[in-house]
Amino acid sequence: MRIIDIIEKKKKGESLTEKEIKFFIDGVMDGSIEDYQTSALLMAIYFKGMDIDETTWLTKYMVESGEILDLSKISDNIVDKHSTGGVGDKITLMFLPLMAASGIYTAKLSGRGLGHTGGTIDKLESIPNFRTDLSIKEFKERVKKHHTAIAAQTLSLAPADGKLYALRDVTSTVDIIPLIASSVVSKKIASGANHIILDVKYGSGAFLKTAKEAEKLSQVMVEVGKRLDRNICAVISSMNQPLGRAVGNSVEIQEVIEFLKGNMEPDLKEITFTLCQKAFEKTGKIKTKKEAEKYLEDIINSGKALEKFKEIVASQSGDISIIDDYSKLPQSSIKYEVKAKKDGFVKNIDALKIAKACKNLGAGRDKKADKIDYSAGIYLTQKYSEPVKKGETIAVIYTNKKSAVKEAESMIIDAFEIAEEKPKKQSLIYKIIG
Amino acid sequence: MRIIDIIEKKKKGESLTEKEIKFFIDGVMDGSIEDYQTSALLMAIYFKGMDIDETTWLTKYMVESGEILDLSKISDNIVDKHSTGGVGDKITLMFLPLMAASGIYTAKLSGRGLGHTGGTIDKLESIPNFRTDLSIKEFKERVKKHHTAIAAQTLSLAPADGKLYALRDVTSTVDIIPLIASSVVSKKIASGANHIILDVKYGSGAFLKTAKEAEKLSQVMVEVGKRLDRNICAVISSMNQPLGRAVGNSVEIQEVIEFLKGNMEPDLKEITFTLCQKAFEKTGKIKTKKEAEKYLEDIINSGKALEKFKEIVASQSGDISIIDDYSKLPQSSIKYEVKAKKDGFVKNIDALKIAKACKNLGAGRDKKADKIDYSAGIYLTQKYSEPVKKGETIAVIYTNKKSAVKEAESMIIDAFEIAEEKPKKQSLIYKIIG
Repeated sequence: MRIIDIIEKKKKGESLTEKEIKFFIDGVMDGSIEDYQTSALLMAIYFKGMDIDETTWLTKYMVESGEILDLSKISDNIVDKHSTGGVGDKITLMFLPLMAASGIYTAKLSGRGLGHTGGTIDKLESIPNFRTDLSIKEFKERVKKHHTAIAAQTLSLAPADGKLYALRDVTSTVDIIPLIASSVVSKKIASGANHIILDVKYGSGAFLKTAKEAEKLSQVMVEVGKRLDRNICAVISSMNQPLGRAVGNSVEIQEVIEFLKGNMEPDLKEITFTLCQKAFEKTGKIKTKKEAEKYLEDIINSGKALEKFKEIVASQSGDISIIDDYSKLPQSSIKYEVKAKKDGFVKNIDALKIAKACKNLGAGRDKKADKIDYSAGIYLTQKYSEPVKKGETIAVIYTNKKSAVKEAESMIIDAFEIAEEKPKKQSLIYKIIG
Repeated sequence: MRIIDIIEKKKKGESLTEKEIKFFIDGVMDGSIEDYQTSALLMAIYFKGMDIDETTWLTKYMVESGEILDLSKISDNIVDKHSTGGVGDKITLMFLPLMAASGIYTAKLSGRGLGHTGGTIDKLESIPNFRTDLSIKEFKERVKKHHTAIAAQTLSLAPADGKLYALRDVTSTVDIIPLIASSVVSKKIASGANHIILDVKYGSGAFLKTAKEAEKLSQVMVEVGKRLDRNICAVISSMNQPLGRAVGNSVEIQEVIEFLKGNMEPDLKEITFTLCQKAFEKTGKIKTKKEAEKYLEDIINSGKALEKFKEIVASQSGDISIIDDYSKLPQSSIKYEVKAKKDGFVKNIDALKIAKACKNLGAGRDKKADKIDYSAGIYLTQKYSEPVKKGETIAVIYTNKKSAVKEAESMIIDAFEIAEEKPKKQSLIYKIIG
């Protein structure tokens, strides 16, 4: 078998066989296939696609290219949740304690953020002393004991995906549905869960811009996951506007705690409850949406969910006093209020613009090695459909970079679309697949 | 400017600007663009093409990436001829002495063969002592004195093309019309001629399989050449069957000498005379086809063309005694006659099959470093439309590899298509562009 014949075959639009895909992944791993051949094949895949068989085999051999976390001694019923990424996306931090408080096992390996805002791991690290560098042994012990744990991904899960991604990133071959699908699903499978809940976003603040693209990706991911014996589903939702009011790191932790205390922003509630409900359905715990909603409200109102959050923070050495005293979270030296330029109602807040402003304030990073300012962020005092008055605060900027304030202010003002009429309430959820 | 943006632009089907193409070629040359980015761009070009502006700029900057041979002190009227490659293609070896005998300057830098048969340089090297390793000074001196010279390409002409070609060869991106066009035309421009005659082949024995593809390539090459101020044309002809009767190295030299002695195979005559006629037309020497034909027949019948060939061989230290005594050319130990299996007329001789058989006999090479057996080859005693009788010779195998004879025999028999009726005479020339 020769890689050049495989490239030629794909170039002509033919489907690759399982053997050819295995040969490709083996060659990527052992270095016998050169990067310039891989990138040529990736570009051919951009134009000619991959069918569901090819995508499934690709995913399978990416999983097999590295270690696979074995959680079977803890439970046969372990849930994993993955978001394709958004602005103000703190859903994992509410999902995990809600699951654990419901007696469902979750085991979450997560990444650091690259780009506009921090990742879930960065957000957690804004809690003083919180440890995300758990060993596999420590991680499993905590999952067993507390029903959940969250750690930075240090294991070599699906390393072939890592190699391919590094190449895609510099050859303009990131936006290819079957490759995105196999990348996401291979990592989830290697993480050891048997139930996988995908939170797929589209819109300004997501990498997929349209609901149609998100639906296409979701269909492929769900089908591949099923073929590889996972109980998988995808919840597709809009990421045109930031999720919740807080965007940053420690500001988002505050919002998570408020949520678990019962002060739930409607958009956060809609997404979190939907994901939890799907997990209840998949694991057989609760069948209907209505029952799930009641159950979740109960565990929040009773304080069980917050208690579980505290338990998780404590088990990973975090300072639990932040839960009742937010001043113990990293604080920025500058708090600057952004004022509305006119009267009206918020018709839209462009998520991408808010994210970019946030990064400039210090909340995101360009390179892996860059440091994040955990205290930097933006709090949206006004959100979709809420009234604004000229001269009154619509958002608060938190930063330690004085020089960044003015530009962030104008980016925020630019992000807000103010209309004369109050827009109607909208559901964020577009579709659920699987 | 970033290469990833250029890849993305081409991926979307947009045209690149002159600056972007210069940036690309500069980056290929100085190594700032990685091979894996180049191959991704090449694959995107496969799918999205390049317009004539882009192809012209690419050609221009490939020329400028290296040395340019300056022949302007010899003449303002220098002809170069290039074939896209065929089986039994010895046309250059008749074209050059005919041009020189007509008082037209030609300067030919040529390559060694890779694949089925030797290249023009290999064929010449089958003449004992023939020197193809002329220095630039020696080359120019001979062009000036004898109106022609032929040397192996040692100069670094259009090195960017060399780099791109090496990458295309291993990434399945060879078959891209604008890249083939810029590769051919950039080398010809860098070789210093102002009149360029392209001999473009299609069919079984050529890399382009159809007349339509050859026409498309020819149109692009001629347009690019014109835009870069060259007087250029392309003669498109069929390469479905071998050219002439001899395929190999020293056997082809014999056929060339026979041609110059007046024993012209009709197909060799058709192509050679057409190319010469276009050169006469371009340089203004002779206007009409009829006059050109008469002129060429005269210089052959008078012995002037053969005399010029002898002069060239002598000037490059070759043994001129071969001209009257073919036994002084390399001789194979085995001469094996292939017999027809049935009666009829030759309807087709598959050029590719003959070429493959020839290579197995020792006449071609796989890698640059491989040695060629100059005496190995095939002589077709019967050609298109000629009668064959069961048990009578249709071809002669020349080789030193006893083990290769039987397979070559069956490949030759397989290459011959024998029909009951005599097929009609056909013209090889499909079209002339420019």
